[in-house]
Amino acid sequence: MLQRIILIVVLLAGTISAEEGMWTFDNPPTQLIQQKYHFVLTKEWLDHVRLSSVRLNDGGSGSFVSPHGLVLTNHHVARGQLQKNSTAQHDYIKNGFYASTPEQEMKAQDLEANVLVSTEDVTGRIQAALKGTESPEQQFRARESIIAEIERESTQKTGLRSDVVTLYQGGEYWLYRYKKYTDLRIVFAPEEQAAFFGGDPDNFTYPRYDLDMALFRVYENGKPIDSPNYLKWNPKGADEGDLVFVSGHPGSTQRLDTLAQLLFERDSALPIALPIYRDRITVLQRFSASSAEHEREAGSTIFFLQNTVKVLTGELQGLENPRIIANKKADEEKFRAAVTSNPELKEKYGTAWDDIAAAEQKMTSRLKETYFHSMDSQLNSLAVDIVEYVTEIKKPDGERLPGFHESQLESLRLRLFSPAPIYPDMEIARITGALHRDLNALGPDDPFLKIVLRGRTPEQAAAELVNGSKLQDPQVRKALVEGGQQAVGASTDSMIVLARKLDPIHRELIKWTQDNVESVEQRSGEQLGRARFALYGKSTYPDATVTLRLSYGQMKGYPMNGTVAPAKTTYYGLYDRAFSFNDQPPFNLPQRYRDGMKNLDLTTPLDFVSTNDVVGGNSGSPVLNKDAEVVGLIFDGNIESRLGDYVYDIESNRSIAVHTAAMTEALRKMYGAGKLVQELTGGAAGQP
Amino acid sequence: MLQRIILIVVLLAGTISAEEGMWTFDNPPTQLIQQKYHFVLTKEWLDHVRLSSVRLNDGGSGSFVSPHGLVLTNHHVARGQLQKNSTAQHDYIKNGFYASTPEQEMKAQDLEANVLVSTEDVTGRIQAALKGTESPEQQFRARESIIAEIERESTQKTGLRSDVVTLYQGGEYWLYRYKKYTDLRIVFAPEEQAAFFGGDPDNFTYPRYDLDMALFRVYENGKPIDSPNYLKWNPKGADEGDLVFVSGHPGSTQRLDTLAQLLFERDSALPIALPIYRDRITVLQRFSASSAEHEREAGSTIFFLQNTVKVLTGELQGLENPRIIANKKADEEKFRAAVTSNPELKEKYGTAWDDIAAAEQKMTSRLKETYFHSMDSQLNSLAVDIVEYVTEIKKPDGERLPGFHESQLESLRLRLFSPAPIYPDMEIARITGALHRDLNALGPDDPFLKIVLRGRTPEQAAAELVNGSKLQDPQVRKALVEGGQQAVGASTDSMIVLARKLDPIHRELIKWTQDNVESVEQRSGEQLGRARFALYGKSTYPDATVTLRLSYGQMKGYPMNGTVAPAKTTYYGLYDRAFSFNDQPPFNLPQRYRDGMKNLDLTTPLDFVSTNDVVGGNSGSPVLNKDAEVVGLIFDGNIESRLGDYVYDIESNRSIAVHTAAMTEALRKMYGAGKLVQELTGGAAGQP
Repeated sequence: MLQRIILIVVLLAGTISAEEGMWTFDNPPTQLIQQKYHFVLTKEWLDHVRLSSVRLNDGGSGSFVSPHGLVLTNHHVARGQLQKNSTAQHDYIKNGFYASTPEQEMKAQDLEANVLVSTEDVTGRIQAALKGTESPEQQFRARESIIAEIERESTQKTGLRSDVVTLYQGGEYWLYRYKKYTDLRIVFAPEEQAAFFGGDPDNFTYPRYDLDMALFRVYENGKPIDSPNYLKWNPKGADEGDLVFVSGHPGSTQRLDTLAQLLFERDSALPIALPIYRDRITVLQRFSASSAEHEREAGSTIFFLQNTVKVLTGELQGLENPRIIANKKADEEKFRAAVTSNPELKEKYGTAWDDIAAAEQKMTSRLKETYFHSMDSQLNSLAVDIVEYVTEIKKPDGERLPGFHESQLESLRLRLFSPAPIYPDMEIARITGALHRDLNALGPDDPFLKIVLRGRTPEQAAAELVNGSKLQDPQVRKALVEGGQQAVGASTDSMIVLARKLDPIHRELIKWTQDNVESVEQRSGEQLGRARFALYGKSTYPDATVTLRLSYGQMKGYPMNGTVAPAKTTYYGLYDRAFSFNDQPPFNLPQRYRDGMKNLDLTTPLDFVSTNDVVGGNSGSPVLNKDAEVVGLIFDGNIESRLGDYVYDIESNRSIAVHTAAMTEALRKMYGAGKLVQELTGGAAGQP
Repeated sequence: MLQRIILIVVLLAGTISAEEGMWTFDNPPTQLIQQKYHFVLTKEWLDHVRLSSVRLNDGGSGSFVSPHGLVLTNHHVARGQLQKNSTAQHDYIKNGFYASTPEQEMKAQDLEANVLVSTEDVTGRIQAALKGTESPEQQFRARESIIAEIERESTQKTGLRSDVVTLYQGGEYWLYRYKKYTDLRIVFAPEEQAAFFGGDPDNFTYPRYDLDMALFRVYENGKPIDSPNYLKWNPKGADEGDLVFVSGHPGSTQRLDTLAQLLFERDSALPIALPIYRDRITVLQRFSASSAEHEREAGSTIFFLQNTVKVLTGELQGLENPRIIANKKADEEKFRAAVTSNPELKEKYGTAWDDIAAAEQKMTSRLKETYFHSMDSQLNSLAVDIVEYVTEIKKPDGERLPGFHESQLESLRLRLFSPAPIYPDMEIARITGALHRDLNALGPDDPFLKIVLRGRTPEQAAAELVNGSKLQDPQVRKALVEGGQQAVGASTDSMIVLARKLDPIHRELIKWTQDNVESVEQRSGEQLGRARFALYGKSTYPDATVTLRLSYGQMKGYPMNGTVAPAKTTYYGLYDRAFSFNDQPPFNLPQRYRDGMKNLDLTTPLDFVSTNDVVGGNSGSPVLNKDAEVVGLIFDGNIESRLGDYVYDIESNRSIAVHTAAMTEALRKMYGAGKLVQELTGGAAGQP
């Protein structure tokens, strides 16, 4: 349920500043780009870029960069898959990985790639289905039902993954169809210390010196696919002042949540969520300290949590900035006055703001349960999914819980049956930590805790739950799912037993939230979306929704901490920062970089910044020049862009990318991966 | 009069945080250092460091670093003297300077060095002289008179430069005696582009990559002096975590001005001063653009002005920070309550805050004249000094204008008769700019402007004034001063004629300010100083007063812009920043650094930061280790320390220094100055 704080989607108010926006491909900012940069986006350009862009289910973006299915993304997007393939003997995160022959390419355990092949406006169909409904709850069910129907119908007809996407707060609904790939193989990843040099301190900051790249190859039927839509590699990369594009999948923004929604996040949600994340880090750091193998096991989770804390801290600071709240308030008052002064709009949409505010107020009454009824456990999550799965698939599609609709089942199964390792010691540590946290927050009489603990200490409960479960074996999970309600009902697996007992509590909270909060947010969101179209037309972009977007901008430095940040960094800077910190972690050089320095041209551009409007989820997006050639690889935003969920500021908002010159130089001179460079640059036939 | 905004001295309230403070050598923070660092400051250590420390009249600090009178300071402190020795043919600022033989050492034209040889508490004598006086004006005159007497008496008795220094807001007065040197010769300076790499943008920021050093040698009677008190050179420099000391001459702080004084600066003085400085820069940049020679001529003045604007902008931002003002208010209320609740203190000192507030209020009525009755002209300043000089020296010492007391005359004459070049074209440009500025602010009927313009345009007046004056010739100035009132009264030199006419206006404003503002600030300041001693004893340090102070601290990084700044930088970083900006000014490398890179060990520490509490005036101060060896050279503070005039914050306040390893490496490998390194390190006999 934690996503609530970042999944609410609302419509943009006010005017758009140059470079701002994550535009859908059906409504690109053609005029704005032409006015400022005298460049004309064509349909061919857009189609080619769209079909070369990839969404990865580990929360990032990517792109095809060769005709043989080679996909470029970030090391930090690939990190989870590297972790899942690593063992105590082979640590691909620490040492990197390079498959110098096709045979060495290493299967990712549960990675899915999506390519957006078509989109279709289905707003009319959904609005029609809502006719005759009255209450938000009725509308919610009707909407769920028609969406599931559209998705299922499309899946059956096309065989493609089909998602209905809510845009403009519900002002529009679109059906997005994706070609889906589930066999991705790891081709190349540098040492984490090269990809993530500077660690958590440097994360979300600039100047930066990171080679945050990884390469996968997409297979079908045991062979690399042909990918005729791929982006050409430009090893010279971008120069200061160049117009550049980013095509990727930004996760979520709240640029025009209502004021009530932002204040809910600031005053209620984030103050609960942040300490939980911090405590989870503490628990895992303690676990890591107990052995080198534990440290390896916990690495990716700590990385993810630290990243999240830095993001949420930035969001909270943004919301605590009086200027941001004042601007939001002024925008909302203006919009509201425009609606109220028009009798027809007022009649249709005038109560939306107050309705949302009342729903947010209601939500606060059950926020503690929402956040603290949690085990922080992979085994528990799998058990909950299995218990729900066998019940849900018996229901009509439109009535199922979110995540169990027909069109979502294949992706769900990929995750449920993933062979990725689960570490029992770490599970025990995490569950123990979570239960202590829950106890402190809720007290021992909480119904959830009573069921979980049954008089045991958190330590005892965690150990017995983990040791009494066989769910780390994907075959066991498969057998339960295939055995259906009967097998699950009869299971004595400790985690399944617990999930069965918690099921009623869990379902009650989901239903309560849907009926009292989400349904209101959806209906009122739709009203605001339509009100805005009525007043301003479709002159803007929708908030981010993990769907494909195009942003434009310029490679450009910015004012920073009293001076100016350069548009790019060089390899010299990597060595400067390492030696400035006496080569101590997280600023230590990989051995390869210490030994191989003399082979590198240190003047090579390493990372660079541009004014493109990107947020989390854009990680791994290609940076493109006018010719749709890859000139960089988005991997972060600067600290000044942490307010990006709420506002975009061209003065100092910057996306950070790895420069293609640095990737080319490193592949060739540091990693002996000349064959990959050949494939990227189209010289000779490339690797496959 | 611009100094008013930075010369008011008040006493520190509240408690002192670790590392805070610029301590006088009579009251060093021995206990604080012992507690935190387990190091005991001895009298021998303090005496040795004091006698090795040098004050330079160009506004900086320095230290003896060889037994042969070699003085280390910053390039930016030496910049004025380098400019004065440069010509269209020999540009020592652009190209640097190195005297590889004693004969090549080049005389600075008007540089004075002072070494503090003794100090004496004269508070009692001054308090005695004020007995029987009543009004602030009477006290002001009595104080001026006794101070002049003490200084003259000491000068006559010892032959030493003798200054009475106001400490603790007038809680104490000390007589400081200096050995004075007026023959300094330039031995070494790097190219400005090495010393000031990054220019105005990087100024007052960190990380930094500057070799901001210069070496002078002190001569007497045509020979290098013996300087038995000198600081040993440690070429390894400081390491992260080391305890380090700074001995230098911080200019001024207002850490405990009353709230009224700070608000006066924030709301009245700085809003007038800053635009004037900015306009002066614009005028000179326009002048610079007209030819390469003009650019060379204006360089040092633009440098100084840009530096000042960055300082004052920082001060204003500090004062606009509500937290700073709130803290100040709370401190003052606490102090005031303590005074008011004690009947004796209340009777003696209780009105001080209101008296100061009333004086500041009065000052605002004449602030425009104070700032705009200015010609921004060296010739005009010299003319004013000459006209006043011949009148003032006829008066009893105690009744003269500030700057004309007997003990100050030798230093004044050094400046008046300096052979440093004055550029007529630049004078015309500056005066024209100033008069336009004055006209805009005051209108054509202002009495000052009427006298200056006499119906002419600013362009005409400026040209006629400059062309009608011979004052750029130091012999002409000398003849006027030696000819006394008669010669000056008979002079038809345009600048002298103007200064005579403006003299009454000028004197009236000085007297009005003394009688209505300065006298009140001094009396009330003394009251507050005494009140604080009565309440808290002498547990603290006085605000900075361009006198010798000791600060202690630790070489240490700090949190910066979302990540951490390292304790030091390396030569790698110089090349990174240069290539990051495509080697474009102000981030271009000197040719020597492009050609000679392969000779340098790029891992050598270049600049470093420490928690020492320093402000403007500390430029050129040595950074010392426990053994009083030089390990660095202060040249700046970070952007976070720009509030240092008002507060010190150990979390992010940092001084910035050049590392001795970088200086040693550069002298040896870049500049072929191995002989200098030998002299510094005491290997062989050194240069002289």
